[in-house]
Amino acid sequence: MARPRIGARAPIVILSDFGCRDHYAGVMKGVIASISPEAPVIDLTHGIPPQQVLAGALALRESVSFFPRRTIFLAVVDPGVGTDRKPIAVETKRGLRLVGPDNGLLWLAASWEGIKRIVALRSARYRLPKVSASFHGRDIFAPAAAWLWRGVPMSELGPQLRTIEQLDPYAGVIANPNELRGEVIYVDGFGNLITNISRASFERFAGRCQQCRLSITIKRGVSLSLQGSYAEARQGSPLAIFGSFNLLEIAVRNGNAAKWFNAAVGARVRLRRADARISSRG
Amino acid sequence: MARPRIGARAPIVILSDFGCRDHYAGVMKGVIASISPEAPVIDLTHGIPPQQVLAGALALRESVSFFPRRTIFLAVVDPGVGTDRKPIAVETKRGLRLVGPDNGLLWLAASWEGIKRIVALRSARYRLPKVSASFHGRDIFAPAAAWLWRGVPMSELGPQLRTIEQLDPYAGVIANPNELRGEVIYVDGFGNLITNISRASFERFAGRCQQCRLSITIKRGVSLSLQGSYAEARQGSPLAIFGSFNLLEIAVRNGNAAKWFNAAVGARVRLRRADARISSRG
Amino acid sequence: MARPRIGARAPIVILSDFGCRDHYAGVMKGVIASISPEAPVIDLTHGIPPQQVLAGALALRESVSFFPRRTIFLAVVDPGVGTDRKPIAVETKRGLRLVGPDNGLLWLAASWEGIKRIVALRSARYRLPKVSASFHGRDIFAPAAAWLWRGVPMSELGPQLRTIEQLDPYAGVIANPNELRGEVIYVDGFGNLITNISRASFERFAGRCQQCRLSITIKRGVSLSLQGSYAEARQGSPLAIFGSFNLLEIAVRNGNAAKWFNAAVGARVRLRRADARISSRG
Repeated sequence: MARPRIGARAPIVILSDFGCRDHYAGVMKGVIASISPEAPVIDLTHGIPPQQVLAGALALRESVSFFPRRTIFLAVVDPGVGTDRKPIAVETKRGLRLVGPDNGLLWLAASWEGIKRIVALRSARYRLPKVSASFHGRDIFAPAAAWLWRGVPMSELGPQLRTIEQLDPYAGVIANPNELRGEVIYVDGFGNLITNISRASFERFAGRCQQCRLSITIKRGVSLSLQGSYAEARQGSPLAIFGSFNLLEIAVRNGNAAKWFNAAVGARVRLRRADARISSRG
Repeated sequence: MARPRIGARAPIVILSDFGCRDHYAGVMKGVIASISPEAPVIDLTHGIPPQQVLAGALALRESVSFFPRRTIFLAVVDPGVGTDRKPIAVETKRGLRLVGPDNGLLWLAASWEGIKRIVALRSARYRLPKVSASFHGRDIFAPAAAWLWRGVPMSELGPQLRTIEQLDPYAGVIANPNELRGEVIYVDGFGNLITNISRASFERFAGRCQQCRLSITIKRGVSLSLQGSYAEARQGSPLAIFGSFNLLEIAVRNGNAAKWFNAAVGARVRLRRADARISSRG
Repeated sequence: MARPRIGARAPIVILSDFGCRDHYAGVMKGVIASISPEAPVIDLTHGIPPQQVLAGALALRESVSFFPRRTIFLAVVDPGVGTDRKPIAVETKRGLRLVGPDNGLLWLAASWEGIKRIVALRSARYRLPKVSASFHGRDIFAPAAAWLWRGVPMSELGPQLRTIEQLDPYAGVIANPNELRGEVIYVDGFGNLITNISRASFERFAGRCQQCRLSITIKRGVSLSLQGSYAEARQGSPLAIFGSFNLLEIAVRNGNAAKWFNAAVGARVRLRRADARISSRG
């Protein structure tokens, strides 16, 4: 790839579960514009399903590597707003800054990039003058992101922390010699069912089984084959694919897999190693 | 709070009921980019429920104070497009400019900030060459906002007006010594039920009743207690709270109050002063 | 109209069917920010119904003329991702650039503006280093748009093409002396039913029939009259209008025509020329 421009202004990128309906996401941009009017602001998405911290964590994890270094992510999926869960900022090894609640939302992305430093957002100087009990996105997180953009160092925002809440969806995958078991952890807007089975887990499992056939089943036992692209399946047929998440994903060609399988987050997915004798007939 | 940067470019902030589905909101941004390509443009929201002028007025009212002075708001919820309702611009005491139809949409925000000047958008010079009967957001309002951003004075846009349409949802609250009656005026995307009972009305009422218990009821008589944060209620339980609107709001902890109560805009809400003897048993 | 500023930076304008829910649209903006951090980016819409290429083509066609010359449109409605459909860029006579899949999505807009040049996006230098089978918006189209913005000439992106896929919804209109038949080709977020009957077809047909009455019917035979604005119909009543698409559109005053008629894309619409004797009684 040709070489991108160096040294330009990194954006503030916002992710939330505020939806498209209300002014909540817009108000955070007002707070940013009041503090750092020259900061470019990008909406990553405001469509994370309400209070689904894991869905937000996945979207963030899948996105960070496509943004330039020094980008500031402002992430708000915060069912614990008003409790004692900490507001934090994380700096990564590549120089990204992630701002949000310490409820696991930031962990997947931060650990993927490599964590350099964590601080608690405690300084009143970098919050709005009045902090509500219900909208820390506006009152704490947006100001912190905007001040970071203006060059305020991490250490001024509050005391350093040693740990961060973790939320690891991939940990739940169970592998034994003949079977790999996972589950659907995210359903996207096309109805694609994203599972917690990573390409690495898949290859560790399938590598042992080069000559044999694999059977991928979801819920009521429909068996799918793994495809290289959506278009390799027939119109309206289900397939398994490693999609843009680099996770095993169950889709329907030009259709909606969530409806086809009547499946939601939590639906179980199994990969089985078919008997070698059976597979030799294939 | 630390001091924000002075003198930077204020944004044009758009609110509409155009939704996320169509290109209508995007086309307004094309008109702005054609006239004022350097104007930073912020989407406040395009998710105001279709033609609900009051919902738009509330969202605007709740947002204006979080934006920097000289911000230009372009607000389009316009069921009367094509009739003789006036297109207007309002300048506030802090230097905000609000552009939109004169149907009450701008009044709550404008009167909150303090009105300095109102003009009718009559000059053909600052409209698109061809004005349709169905899309004044594109043909009249977006050009007016973009020209204001470039420095065209209010007075060039059209003749000064003395009055503006008013739409006051808070006026409907009825208070007597033992009861305060209001109603739901907005349902947000989380299903929170926002009422027209302001903190001031509440305190005037509750102040007379410091030792006694208050009962807050909605619809079929469920009694709620007032909380300081969403998290003080149990998971899945309803509560009353002064939320980010500074209006009494009925919510369900990590749930959807509109579904829980099967309630919509117009649902009645009552606060009653319980008998002092009864309350002393509490 | 007053004269807009010349020579300023044209935006990159994105249209997709990615919806508001996922991070997919946001990730394309990350790719752009990594290559051309100073490019102003505008969301035209991400709400095109999934995989409805025609709906995307119409939205693009209705929007292009409101954007400044040299604007770059990045359009992704791409059910054939992963097949051999070509990724392309089109330059128009006014200097717009349209980037997207060669599946008809770009044709209506490109031919409206006048096509100057077409190239296939084949150069690996202007793609992401790794191209997936499922997300060319991120891996091919967004990088191409961002490099074009930075001044890379069309010819460096790949070989010139002579033709482009066409998708012409207006072609399906059937006219005979007494009847004009078309169909609904788009339903917008307000529930307005946009047909493929252009103002030109309408005038050719109606021009022959100046003294007679026209009857416009949809589905179960409801007869509508043509209005100059939505507000000319009674509250809750259906009407026919030439809306912002410049296509015959069936609407309900302050209501939802798709629900009123239970109509969707494909519903038939007929204009009939009533008998002159009958019309003279009107």
